[in-house]
Amino acid sequence: MPILRQEPLTGEWVIIATERARRPETFAPQKKEKKAPPPARVENCPFCYGNEHMTPREVLAYRDDSPKADTPGWALRVIPNKFPALEQYDAREGLAFDNANGWNFLESYQGYGVHEVIIETPDHNRHLADLKDDELALVLKSFEERLRSLAGDPRLKYVQIFRNHLREAGASIEHPHCQLLALPFIPPLLEKEYRRCREYYQDEGRCLVCTLLEEEEKMGERVVLENDSFLAFIPFAAPLPFTTWIIPRGHASSLEVSADNWEEKLAPVLKGFLAKLSQKLEDPPYNLYLHLAPLRSESLPYYHWHMEIIPKLTIVAGLEMATGTYINVSKPEEAAKFLREQKVNVESYK
Amino acid sequence: MPILRQEPLTGEWVIIATERARRPETFAPQKKEKKAPPPARVENCPFCYGNEHMTPREVLAYRDDSPKADTPGWALRVIPNKFPALEQYDAREGLAFDNANGWNFLESYQGYGVHEVIIETPDHNRHLADLKDDELALVLKSFEERLRSLAGDPRLKYVQIFRNHLREAGASIEHPHCQLLALPFIPPLLEKEYRRCREYYQDEGRCLVCTLLEEEEKMGERVVLENDSFLAFIPFAAPLPFTTWIIPRGHASSLEVSADNWEEKLAPVLKGFLAKLSQKLEDPPYNLYLHLAPLRSESLPYYHWHMEIIPKLTIVAGLEMATGTYINVSKPEEAAKFLREQKVNVESYK
Repeated sequence: MPILRQEPLTGEWVIIATERARRPETFAPQKKEKKAPPPARVENCPFCYGNEHMTPREVLAYRDDSPKADTPGWALRVIPNKFPALEQYDAREGLAFDNANGWNFLESYQGYGVHEVIIETPDHNRHLADLKDDELALVLKSFEERLRSLAGDPRLKYVQIFRNHLREAGASIEHPHCQLLALPFIPPLLEKEYRRCREYYQDEGRCLVCTLLEEEEKMGERVVLENDSFLAFIPFAAPLPFTTWIIPRGHASSLEVSADNWEEKLAPVLKGFLAKLSQKLEDPPYNLYLHLAPLRSESLPYYHWHMEIIPKLTIVAGLEMATGTYINVSKPEEAAKFLREQKVNVESYK
Repeated sequence: MPILRQEPLTGEWVIIATERARRPETFAPQKKEKKAPPPARVENCPFCYGNEHMTPREVLAYRDDSPKADTPGWALRVIPNKFPALEQYDAREGLAFDNANGWNFLESYQGYGVHEVIIETPDHNRHLADLKDDELALVLKSFEERLRSLAGDPRLKYVQIFRNHLREAGASIEHPHCQLLALPFIPPLLEKEYRRCREYYQDEGRCLVCTLLEEEEKMGERVVLENDSFLAFIPFAAPLPFTTWIIPRGHASSLEVSADNWEEKLAPVLKGFLAKLSQKLEDPPYNLYLHLAPLRSESLPYYHWHMEIIPKLTIVAGLEMATGTYINVSKPEEAAKFLREQKVNVESYK
């Protein structure tokens, strides 16, 4: 019999299919042909080292052996997106958008915001799961640093950090990178999570995600891997096969208020998870993103930041587009067991 | 400069890209190879005529020359889905689901509902755009007939009718068909539309969609085609390229309370639109669905039913999955002009 489960952070019902359920190993994408891996440097790739002149000027870089911006010698580089979805303009007199009237539809507003690219590594051929722990920690650290910097612009309300792995998940440039879009409003899925978490806090006097963490740990059957600071698990009401959340054990509503060196603790768990995913499901495309408190919200007692990873293994079809209700054809417990039992070829994830 | 537009029915902001905008003709999917069209009858297709024994027993059929159920001679056939996402079971004592406590997460409920397939034609190789007006009207008529029948079960709250065209849009069986999923709850996207439309009605004393229709007609630049009963247009804040709405001119909250013979009026507009889409964009995959009032809600003054069609021309990536905020890389006015100007090879759509 089919099952209905409620996603606690959004309140939405998910159908966990039983009649049409598939075994975990059937989700590996069929590769058309085994392509040779790309070289470490690609002549015309704007994100490769030596091609710094092909991008807008960097806004942040971690570099050891060169003090000069926009030259080789960096380990990580953050640049403005050359084709930005949103742009900062002179807005000292405020944004017309901020005075938008609710029913004034058929009105266009100038899009204000920041769109950046985080080039994770100078090497064209090393993805997140291939980085060393300390390199991956640097990528995560850059997120926090950009958040702190963007918080200085009061017109920006929320910063979405996200990653599209492979073309099928929306990556248009092959070189490993994340993106960041700073928005002048709180987007709808975050708004919904904030509301639910606030309601829970009012009703129960504690953080919903802290409760969820305790329960998931106690039950254990949806846990994929963990260390003393982070828990990676497939949520009870996962909307899509192998959707995974990585949650800090210590309560914190965003990166800036997380425990010191959170990035060093998260790196091995994230790396271990991505390695399992890649090895068990043939390096599938995925979307990865953070859910954080609004910019400048300081420490919120009711919200708990986390990372979500959604492998792209099935097609989101008409029902989901029409209703926002998902049918998951993979049982979360089976998917978690499948990944948990895979020993991965990484030195350590503890 | 990028533009922000608000979708009136959901209140969500959409980014209309300008820096990364693409011309309408660039969205045609690249076909790998021109496949020969399938034959009118496929031996092992469970939806083809003559194979009625391969499906569960029909719940509705339109047939001329055979009075006997589950035999050839039908023009349209509705059957239970063989692998249902939801099932009806003996629920005389009520659904445990209906007593679900808001914070009782980690609780599974037995999924109650109805999942049916509407086989649109006995022919394996004729899609909606290939049907004659009266055949297409029959398909639409079957939606209303199933709604009336399902309204008899008080546990069902909403019926989602949807269509996945081609494998890339989620169709797992090639034979032309729609699906229907009757749910024991109001799904989140509909809940959101009902709330906004109710608010508008309270504020302005009239239906939001009626107002929108007037405005779109007056401006004209997003209209794709129309007749005296239906208007097809690309909405001002379309979240994805070529998203199109077809809206009845006469106010009605669902099919059962629509003007008589609504289906005969909608058929030529839908057919004309699908023909334009297919001819201008190389028969792209699409999802098509109806947004209706809840089951048994009689005639609501604030809600206005409509059809939405979302061609699958781009990849929904990390930003959209993370936030629910979409970047549309096609300007609605340009997309509408592109389709509007195409003369289509259909006899009539007026």
